[in-house]
Amino acid sequence: MTDYILSDDTRAKLKKVSTASVATALFKRGIRNQYIQGVLPVAVKSETMVGQAFTLRYLPAREDRNPITVFRDANHPQRVAMETCPAGHVLVMDARGDARAATAGSILITRLALRGAAGVVSDGGFRDMAGIGALDMPAYCAGPSAPTNLTLHEALDINIPVACGGVAVFPGDVMLGDGDGVMVIPAHLAEEIAAECAEMEVFEDFVLEQVKNGAGIIGLYPPTQESNQVAFAAWRKTTGR
Amino acid sequence: MTDYILSDDTRAKLKKVSTASVATALFKRGIRNQYIQGVLPVAVKSETMVGQAFTLRYLPAREDRNPITVFRDANHPQRVAMETCPAGHVLVMDARGDARAATAGSILITRLALRGAAGVVSDGGFRDMAGIGALDMPAYCAGPSAPTNLTLHEALDINIPVACGGVAVFPGDVMLGDGDGVMVIPAHLAEEIAAECAEMEVFEDFVLEQVKNGAGIIGLYPPTQESNQVAFAAWRKTTGR
Amino acid sequence: MTDYILSDDTRAKLKKVSTASVATALFKRGIRNQYIQGVLPVAVKSETMVGQAFTLRYLPAREDRNPITVFRDANHPQRVAMETCPAGHVLVMDARGDARAATAGSILITRLALRGAAGVVSDGGFRDMAGIGALDMPAYCAGPSAPTNLTLHEALDINIPVACGGVAVFPGDVMLGDGDGVMVIPAHLAEEIAAECAEMEVFEDFVLEQVKNGAGIIGLYPPTQESNQVAFAAWRKTTGR
Amino acid sequence: MTDYILSDDTRAKLKKVSTASVATALFKRGIRNQYIQGVLPVAVKSETMVGQAFTLRYLPAREDRNPITVFRDANHPQRVAMETCPAGHVLVMDARGDARAATAGSILITRLALRGAAGVVSDGGFRDMAGIGALDMPAYCAGPSAPTNLTLHEALDINIPVACGGVAVFPGDVMLGDGDGVMVIPAHLAEEIAAECAEMEVFEDFVLEQVKNGAGIIGLYPPTQESNQVAFAAWRKTTGR
Amino acid sequence: MTDYILSDDTRAKLKKVSTASVATALFKRGIRNQYIQGVLPVAVKSETMVGQAFTLRYLPAREDRNPITVFRDANHPQRVAMETCPAGHVLVMDARGDARAATAGSILITRLALRGAAGVVSDGGFRDMAGIGALDMPAYCAGPSAPTNLTLHEALDINIPVACGGVAVFPGDVMLGDGDGVMVIPAHLAEEIAAECAEMEVFEDFVLEQVKNGAGIIGLYPPTQESNQVAFAAWRKTTGR
Amino acid sequence: MTDYILSDDTRAKLKKVSTASVATALFKRGIRNQYIQGVLPVAVKSETMVGQAFTLRYLPAREDRNPITVFRDANHPQRVAMETCPAGHVLVMDARGDARAATAGSILITRLALRGAAGVVSDGGFRDMAGIGALDMPAYCAGPSAPTNLTLHEALDINIPVACGGVAVFPGDVMLGDGDGVMVIPAHLAEEIAAECAEMEVFEDFVLEQVKNGAGIIGLYPPTQESNQVAFAAWRKTTGR
Repeated sequence: MTDYILSDDTRAKLKKVSTASVATALFKRGIRNQYIQGVLPVAVKSETMVGQAFTLRYLPAREDRNPITVFRDANHPQRVAMETCPAGHVLVMDARGDARAATAGSILITRLALRGAAGVVSDGGFRDMAGIGALDMPAYCAGPSAPTNLTLHEALDINIPVACGGVAVFPGDVMLGDGDGVMVIPAHLAEEIAAECAEMEVFEDFVLEQVKNGAGIIGLYPPTQESNQVAFAAWRKTTGR
Repeated sequence: MTDYILSDDTRAKLKKVSTASVATALFKRGIRNQYIQGVLPVAVKSETMVGQAFTLRYLPAREDRNPITVFRDANHPQRVAMETCPAGHVLVMDARGDARAATAGSILITRLALRGAAGVVSDGGFRDMAGIGALDMPAYCAGPSAPTNLTLHEALDINIPVACGGVAVFPGDVMLGDGDGVMVIPAHLAEEIAAECAEMEVFEDFVLEQVKNGAGIIGLYPPTQESNQVAFAAWRKTTGR
Repeated sequence: MTDYILSDDTRAKLKKVSTASVATALFKRGIRNQYIQGVLPVAVKSETMVGQAFTLRYLPAREDRNPITVFRDANHPQRVAMETCPAGHVLVMDARGDARAATAGSILITRLALRGAAGVVSDGGFRDMAGIGALDMPAYCAGPSAPTNLTLHEALDINIPVACGGVAVFPGDVMLGDGDGVMVIPAHLAEEIAAECAEMEVFEDFVLEQVKNGAGIIGLYPPTQESNQVAFAAWRKTTGR
Repeated sequence: MTDYILSDDTRAKLKKVSTASVATALFKRGIRNQYIQGVLPVAVKSETMVGQAFTLRYLPAREDRNPITVFRDANHPQRVAMETCPAGHVLVMDARGDARAATAGSILITRLALRGAAGVVSDGGFRDMAGIGALDMPAYCAGPSAPTNLTLHEALDINIPVACGGVAVFPGDVMLGDGDGVMVIPAHLAEEIAAECAEMEVFEDFVLEQVKNGAGIIGLYPPTQESNQVAFAAWRKTTGR
Repeated sequence: MTDYILSDDTRAKLKKVSTASVATALFKRGIRNQYIQGVLPVAVKSETMVGQAFTLRYLPAREDRNPITVFRDANHPQRVAMETCPAGHVLVMDARGDARAATAGSILITRLALRGAAGVVSDGGFRDMAGIGALDMPAYCAGPSAPTNLTLHEALDINIPVACGGVAVFPGDVMLGDGDGVMVIPAHLAEEIAAECAEMEVFEDFVLEQVKNGAGIIGLYPPTQESNQVAFAAWRKTTGR
Repeated sequence: MTDYILSDDTRAKLKKVSTASVATALFKRGIRNQYIQGVLPVAVKSETMVGQAFTLRYLPAREDRNPITVFRDANHPQRVAMETCPAGHVLVMDARGDARAATAGSILITRLALRGAAGVVSDGGFRDMAGIGALDMPAYCAGPSAPTNLTLHEALDINIPVACGGVAVFPGDVMLGDGDGVMVIPAHLAEEIAAECAEMEVFEDFVLEQVKNGAGIIGLYPPTQESNQVAFAAWRKTTGR
């Protein structure tokens, strides 16, 4: 779907960027709907999740196609997705926003983490949230759910464009997740968004410091007052940022 | 996805069958979730809709991919779907159940009807419902919606398995629609469901006649009382059914 | 639950009363939540539905308790409800507001009508809406639904207090339905509500006539302007109401 | 909020325009969210509703502020709105999309119609839908609801900007309603939208005629194929449009 | 409803079982809908909740039946439920999934805990979540809610079958709760589910250990590869499980 | 809207009062709907939030009115609200309960806190929840959301009556928030609610102590048994409360 490969440099930049900044930078480009709705971090992580999307699509499960025995099939798409998602990528699952059943549990997500994935995002449920939350790898879902995916979700397609939390996710898009949730950065914009947001974070750090020192926000955020632009330039020099 | 081809004979049988009977016949086989939820007929039709599914999948529309100019592309999937859905088939659209924007309007659906389609089902909205309702071809959707599909829905894939109204629809499945909505009959069960339901309709016609004549339902529906089985056999002889 | 028996006289009065008037009269008594939410008439009827509640409670259907064979049981509560709801009563079904499956179909509702019931209200679905709508007896539900009740609803209790559309319905409460839906009148208030609403309807007929003749609503509705009270008194005399 | 006054000429143009065309014309300008969600016509009307917005805002009703006696106040905002909405305007009510109680009934809406209003739109409920639907004036709401507005809605402000069905409506914006629902045209765009949409309707009439005659949609809709542009020009000449 | 009494041995087994395993074991038996939807633990507990259901049903509260004075009645069902729920049982409240008002607060739940209950589950709200979360006894609800139950919920029936979070709960069914939520085990299946799930947990512990050591999931989970069956047998011997 | 000014004494009293007590005290006065639905604390705080409401109303954002450049306007209502909300007040934002976009982020809320506000409540989303949660000032919202408010919300009015979480909030009403959420106390009732609830808390502390010591709730809560009234009186003397 895309030839874009996330470079180490861009990944590093994005690691310091917030979902809020990404949302604003995309908004400026007329792209307004890239926040995955209804999905929260399974556990708070210190590091920001960054990685290209590798996708899995679930359909509603028809009972005759989804007995428990399907997992004996070495080609079952859910299991294959866990074993083929490339290291450094984020597995994104489309469960039609239906969290009444799980889309994965801690055994599978542990395997995914050990294989080096950068994270996992599902707009369905997860089972054994505690086990998943204890992993270093960030995970996002729509809530805990004990029922096996076979109850409501049939894993069908790997790495095709999907919908997740109301957002179109194309394989290779860059997923970025923090405590507020997950943004989808279209692959062709990843470089410029990374660059722009890195700058935004510097400026917001400056603003927050000013505000904590008692400054008002009008004229400062955005810096329409020239003195604030001057102060920011000075601050960058001083702080080396 | 399936080699099954709906025969004229089976189609004719199914034309006399209700969605309720199909739902019950599938329920007996442990298949419980084949009723397309949240979708109503655009207008009441005298004939039952019967046809194999030909599908179109929409994703959430990303703004930069969906300017109005995309319709100038002769390969735009929405337009291609209208021009390639085989005669006698039902076009089934997966719009993630989001009726806040249209998935088609009367010009496209008129074209579809003229090309001989057996019907159309969308779990998104339609625009110009009056124009669509005036066609002979049955149409089902989640409600009227003026906004163009580009607002929220990007047409992406043709004839892959989709979700519609919470049901998995595989290309070639048999869609059956009446005043109560639409059932999805898995292709491999179409023949036996048609046969079984044809018998069910005969029996229900008998039961309704009895009830209208004052009979109670216990022992009659189902006919656990032997006298009712005898009466039914007699009625079939008399009525030639 | 109540010893109250709806008299012919009160029934006759209520037949001329609207759900809107009942809602307002109950509101004046601090009873604000008696309108059954999410339920519409299956078909428009010229007569207002009036009758005491006879109830049926559905629970979520557990699969092992709800095979198709349960209908062979002469004591199945759904079928028993249809055969025992007293003439002149309204069968009220509690399906937890879940219309994804039917709570009855046209054969059962036809039997109910033939037994003399005054109406039926369900906050679940109905199958064969056309057949039900064609009956003289008014019927209200949350929408069409092809799946048999066994799919999601197990009929369990007859004539206990239930919830329907977010309203508590006690056996014997008076159900009143028109084109706007259904109100539940607590049994102990039925007489006074009937009397008060009959008067309200007379006054509203007067007001509507005035408005159609060009009168403004301020001072007229309610009649804070004395001249309107005088005019109303005169109108009652003239019209004999 | 706006000095714009809808001219007779523009009103006449808009009377022939569909909500679908308006939605597309606004979409081309990057304005994507002007369709009032969740609101349907009370009854089908032959004429399109066109008029500038005059607004009424409801807040959640606090019980001590909303006894039945408030209607005795000649300044009650709901009643005042009915008596002050200018002729040719559309009364737009913001009820926070909550249809569990009415925002008006047939007496008030009849008065509004007699005063010459062009229509009424509420994202709450209406009571006595039959009475309202029988008026010549078009009316749109989120469904029938028997409870008086006092139950859940306190009328508070007249003619301030409001939200209706998820759309911002500024007094003076042009409301346009047909069988598919209602679009809000920002006042400053009304002229150009009217002109553009009038042209769109002509073209769509041509296209529909072609389609009914067997033409395919690719190359015709939009007319990327030159022969279709030529045919359209000829058709305009012939039909005098 | 059931004569089944949960033995100490089965309780002990179930204490080591997860909701996920129970869901899968029931799924294998065709029972797919026993996970209480929309309900989360008030606070994380180290021990799994296990106990038979003792139920309380709430109806929508009619204002005239639910003044604050009803709590003066020594027979008020909410208070009686707290004082009669047997030790070792789980109090299950049916509030129709409506968390806009509380179904209990910390004083009542503290009393319940002191009386030896094994836990409490409500699909309505709780007030003073902090106080409830601080108890040793596990508690599950649909969220915090300050309003007293009288606002929306009338406690009516004790220990009849109820719906909770979309699941039928019969008195005596075995409730099992962990960090992912709550499963309802039909009483007649409790023994076999306990036995089967105890085995499943052993196997899953083995699998997780293998995965953490770098094993892939295909062929291991489920163990279709014979070497994994051998390894598991060896592991059981070694670990004494 | 109100002349009421919250005194230090009343504020101090309310600081020791729970939302549950306030809800009950208002319920006794027939005011049942003052709990802000769908809103949770961003982080647990040891102190109760108390302050008079200062409001900000958002409308759905029309794209042409809400480019990123609007923040350059020194009069942008969102920024002005942050700079003008009086110390000791609670900023209450009406975002129509739509948390798909943020209504503020940590820079603005930090400024608000530094200016001495007593808290902030929004029925929309917040971005940078971690930053907001780390402040001493309590904050409540409907969930995290990365998109800027401009995406869906246009800040329009300052300090007019608004709806927040389904509750009418009039400027000057007293907001009270704890771990269970937020109650709105009508300004004219603040004094008497404070007094009554202070007494309720004393009694509930007594009851909880009794319950922890093994007392049953019937006859104690409420204290219909005289001995409990006597015990309470004694307890007050002993504890000096």
